[in-house]
Amino acid sequence: MAEPHFSLGLDFGTSSIRALVVSVDDGREVGLAAGPFEHGSDGVIGDSRDPNIARQHPGDYKTGAEKAIRGALAQAARESEFRPDRIVGIGVDATASTPIPVDAELQPLANRPEFVDDLNALAWLWKDHTAYAEAEAITEIAARDHPEYLARIGGTYSSEWLFAKLLHCLRIAPHVISQAADWIEQGDYIVGFLTGVKSVRELKRNVCAAGHKAMYSQEWGWPPLAFFNEVDPQLGQWCEGRLSDQVFAAGKRAGGLCPEWAERTGLPAGIPVSMAGIDAHVGAVGAGIRTGTLVKILGTSGCDMAVHPSDRTLPDIPGLCGIVQGSILPGYYGLEAGQPALGDLFGWFVRRFTRPAGLTHEDLTRDAAKLQPGESGLLALDWNNGNRCVLADPRLTGLLVGQTLQTSPSEVYRALLEAAAFGARTIMQRFEDHAVSVDQVVVCGGIAEKNQLLLQIYADVTDRPIFVSGSQETCALGAAILGSVAAGQAAGGHDSVETAHDAMSSLKEHHFTPNAGACEVYDELYQLYLELYKAFGEKEQGPPLYGVMKTLITIREKVRQQ
Amino acid sequence: MAEPHFSLGLDFGTSSIRALVVSVDDGREVGLAAGPFEHGSDGVIGDSRDPNIARQHPGDYKTGAEKAIRGALAQAARESEFRPDRIVGIGVDATASTPIPVDAELQPLANRPEFVDDLNALAWLWKDHTAYAEAEAITEIAARDHPEYLARIGGTYSSEWLFAKLLHCLRIAPHVISQAADWIEQGDYIVGFLTGVKSVRELKRNVCAAGHKAMYSQEWGWPPLAFFNEVDPQLGQWCEGRLSDQVFAAGKRAGGLCPEWAERTGLPAGIPVSMAGIDAHVGAVGAGIRTGTLVKILGTSGCDMAVHPSDRTLPDIPGLCGIVQGSILPGYYGLEAGQPALGDLFGWFVRRFTRPAGLTHEDLTRDAAKLQPGESGLLALDWNNGNRCVLADPRLTGLLVGQTLQTSPSEVYRALLEAAAFGARTIMQRFEDHAVSVDQVVVCGGIAEKNQLLLQIYADVTDRPIFVSGSQETCALGAAILGSVAAGQAAGGHDSVETAHDAMSSLKEHHFTPNAGACEVYDELYQLYLELYKAFGEKEQGPPLYGVMKTLITIREKVRQQ
Repeated sequence: MAEPHFSLGLDFGTSSIRALVVSVDDGREVGLAAGPFEHGSDGVIGDSRDPNIARQHPGDYKTGAEKAIRGALAQAARESEFRPDRIVGIGVDATASTPIPVDAELQPLANRPEFVDDLNALAWLWKDHTAYAEAEAITEIAARDHPEYLARIGGTYSSEWLFAKLLHCLRIAPHVISQAADWIEQGDYIVGFLTGVKSVRELKRNVCAAGHKAMYSQEWGWPPLAFFNEVDPQLGQWCEGRLSDQVFAAGKRAGGLCPEWAERTGLPAGIPVSMAGIDAHVGAVGAGIRTGTLVKILGTSGCDMAVHPSDRTLPDIPGLCGIVQGSILPGYYGLEAGQPALGDLFGWFVRRFTRPAGLTHEDLTRDAAKLQPGESGLLALDWNNGNRCVLADPRLTGLLVGQTLQTSPSEVYRALLEAAAFGARTIMQRFEDHAVSVDQVVVCGGIAEKNQLLLQIYADVTDRPIFVSGSQETCALGAAILGSVAAGQAAGGHDSVETAHDAMSSLKEHHFTPNAGACEVYDELYQLYLELYKAFGEKEQGPPLYGVMKTLITIREKVRQQ
Repeated sequence: MAEPHFSLGLDFGTSSIRALVVSVDDGREVGLAAGPFEHGSDGVIGDSRDPNIARQHPGDYKTGAEKAIRGALAQAARESEFRPDRIVGIGVDATASTPIPVDAELQPLANRPEFVDDLNALAWLWKDHTAYAEAEAITEIAARDHPEYLARIGGTYSSEWLFAKLLHCLRIAPHVISQAADWIEQGDYIVGFLTGVKSVRELKRNVCAAGHKAMYSQEWGWPPLAFFNEVDPQLGQWCEGRLSDQVFAAGKRAGGLCPEWAERTGLPAGIPVSMAGIDAHVGAVGAGIRTGTLVKILGTSGCDMAVHPSDRTLPDIPGLCGIVQGSILPGYYGLEAGQPALGDLFGWFVRRFTRPAGLTHEDLTRDAAKLQPGESGLLALDWNNGNRCVLADPRLTGLLVGQTLQTSPSEVYRALLEAAAFGARTIMQRFEDHAVSVDQVVVCGGIAEKNQLLLQIYADVTDRPIFVSGSQETCALGAAILGSVAAGQAAGGHDSVETAHDAMSSLKEHHFTPNAGACEVYDELYQLYLELYKAFGEKEQGPPLYGVMKTLITIREKVRQQ
């Protein structure tokens, strides 16, 4: 029997980093530990005067990583066949766009004493929304001069993304940015320090963040300086000479683990470290994404991932968040869509409208599960945090219709679950309308583990079987898969993500099968959902809404008579 | 100084009767007492197998009346100038349509031993909805053969009304109805026993209930037997010879207090007793209704009352609940409109979505009062119990739009208050579009006493001053006013409701004045409300709804920046 090999996946989330040691041969998870971020509140540094501000201290990435890796290795060491030198590769996923101002030696400015209290010298966390005006300016110029940029990123450049944040920092914190040699993504920074990069000029950039958050494309490279100059001359000036052409996909070996990090973690130096990917994209890898399989990551927000072979035609798909070659799997377009409130939507209702009564998600789910589709007469739009796909309009809001004097909290809760599923169906429809088939759905993330009712509703609303990723640490598993690919088969890993997938990722046996009766009712409800969706969400005049309430009642009565 | 005179108002509600002794000269209230109804739950006898059933025991009206009158007289006796023989008149208001099967001697069948356990021999309370199929049949025939009937009662004959209930009883309880000499309204029954009527043939009928609930009109009298035969031959057969032509308006003397009731109450026999009126209509009298004054009765549902001189032209007003000559004031059309959920709407939200947390109406009102109009970004339709006026569609349901992940219970609560006010504005608009001016609004009822925020919102949404009825017992005061008119000036009362009004009814000094800034915002919100209203409520295709959410946000942002 061959010597067993392992891979180490590092999943940098918003509040902590999780390290997972996985068997390269069969995906068995032998060690898992977390390293919480210590600054701010759950790792996020805010400012009570401006709710748009969300920053992180980059020092947390190092202390967190050291703690998590040591913890995971200690746990793995309980397995007789495990030894640290049997780890053949390391993979990394991170949030994005979370840019960090660094000096020429890749040291974050936040570490300098003069910036100790300066929020603008920190990492600008993905959910920082201070750069909304800059995002609008970028969108405006792109729409005029380079609509092809927007066609690949959902039609709007977001305030969450790299160049908007950079321009905002240039405008409000010149004292910081003037000291910065570069403004780099969190994932690249982490891979940089793990591989001992000492010069920012040598730092490789991951195509996942570059493509989805910074308008980079394998087709056209970075936008030209003229474009940035058109947005704001100081942005063009900054970008000159700083846009690296060293852009690579995750799975590509970035370098070997450097001696410093070998010492900090107890691993041998030289282990191949993969290029980073964005957490959701790497999670899709961990869930076994492939052609025809849609991966839904069910967290506070919802993220939908699909792939399409690069050698097949792919039209622009209006309304997707991103279409980037190589961003999920090498040789495939990575396609990203999503819903900006998922767990947040259900949590809002539970927290605001049933607490402090003490009703929990579990209570409401139990009662909601007793209802038949259509029984409550309620219908909701899932837009409490706007609509990211297909409408790409962050200013849309929620809607609930059908209330009577008997409407109960569990009925509203179920209507919100259903609304999330109807929104998911609009996204699947958009994929399929553009030649990207969705034959199978795999879900992962916290809610996938917790709420079986939601998964059954997904199956019934979309008329597709819903599978659950076998790992509870899908992102970290995806990172470990990429680490094994960075190592390659010769070194005990895998030569392609496909073979790594087959060996390392799995689905839970229990899955959710569409119920024909429920599908039928949900088909009717979905038509009503689309009426609301069009009327309230589409700029063109929607159809008359007169029939919505009546039909809801008719359906309810029909269901109750059954 | 002339001898002081008093009038006694008897207000028969759903759970009790309240007796009020009032000075005829200045409206001072000197005695008040209640007589609770003892059968059932709070006076209502239901059946757990059918939520549509709501009955009352007619015996409760007598025991309750005796207790309340004796209590009110005892309290009045503490005034040195009061003596029972200084009561010059008695007035009565009652719920409607609450028909009672009686024998030829005006004895309710419910008193007979053989019907002691028979729900169908009881009084069929106004909110009994068992006769929905019969109501549909009556509506259908009326629409085909006599649309003029429906034009005066809001377009639909209700399951709450007299002939629907009668037909239902004929169909399901022939053993009861075959023993009945007649099927009479609660108010007429009460006035009948107070005045000692011993034969149902001699019983006078009040035009208020006959007109609003039984298609009677001073113009055409009762519908012809052919009409009832068309609905169902057994209905026609029953009605033959039973439709009394002794129909009179409240304020008209029905008779004198009979010796039996003089003895039961301690009052002198012979005191003039007025014809009865429906509670809400008599409440409008108590609130000082007159041309140009809209009276809003704010209870679990909302009732809007106006009058229009009979000698002036009045077109049909589509969407009103009722237009009946003499039903409120002699010489005037009585006009009734309403909203089927008012207190019930707010109560539903508090009870279902914030309890058992312990949040109360007071808590939510306090927090909601801190919000500016438009600040929450929410907009609701007040249709959780359907729309009675102007759309006359009981199958409409509630709607809430504008929710974000920050939306709080007090914001939703305020949105519901505002929705009620927007609904009230549509009703006022309907009156004014048909030559019935609304210059002043007087509110009364439980919520008028309790929720000042709602009254300010009414003022701001309708851009009209809102006055509060001076009496907390507006219905009983109205009954007392009608009692004084039945007595006439020569006997110490008044010769017209107008002079009785002027002497006996009053407004509270504190009233609610429109705030110009709030009116402006509410004008904008009202336009959005109308967009929802039309799209969801009007059969014809409404206008596009695309702009609703955006405009709400724009308004919210504008308000927050102020």
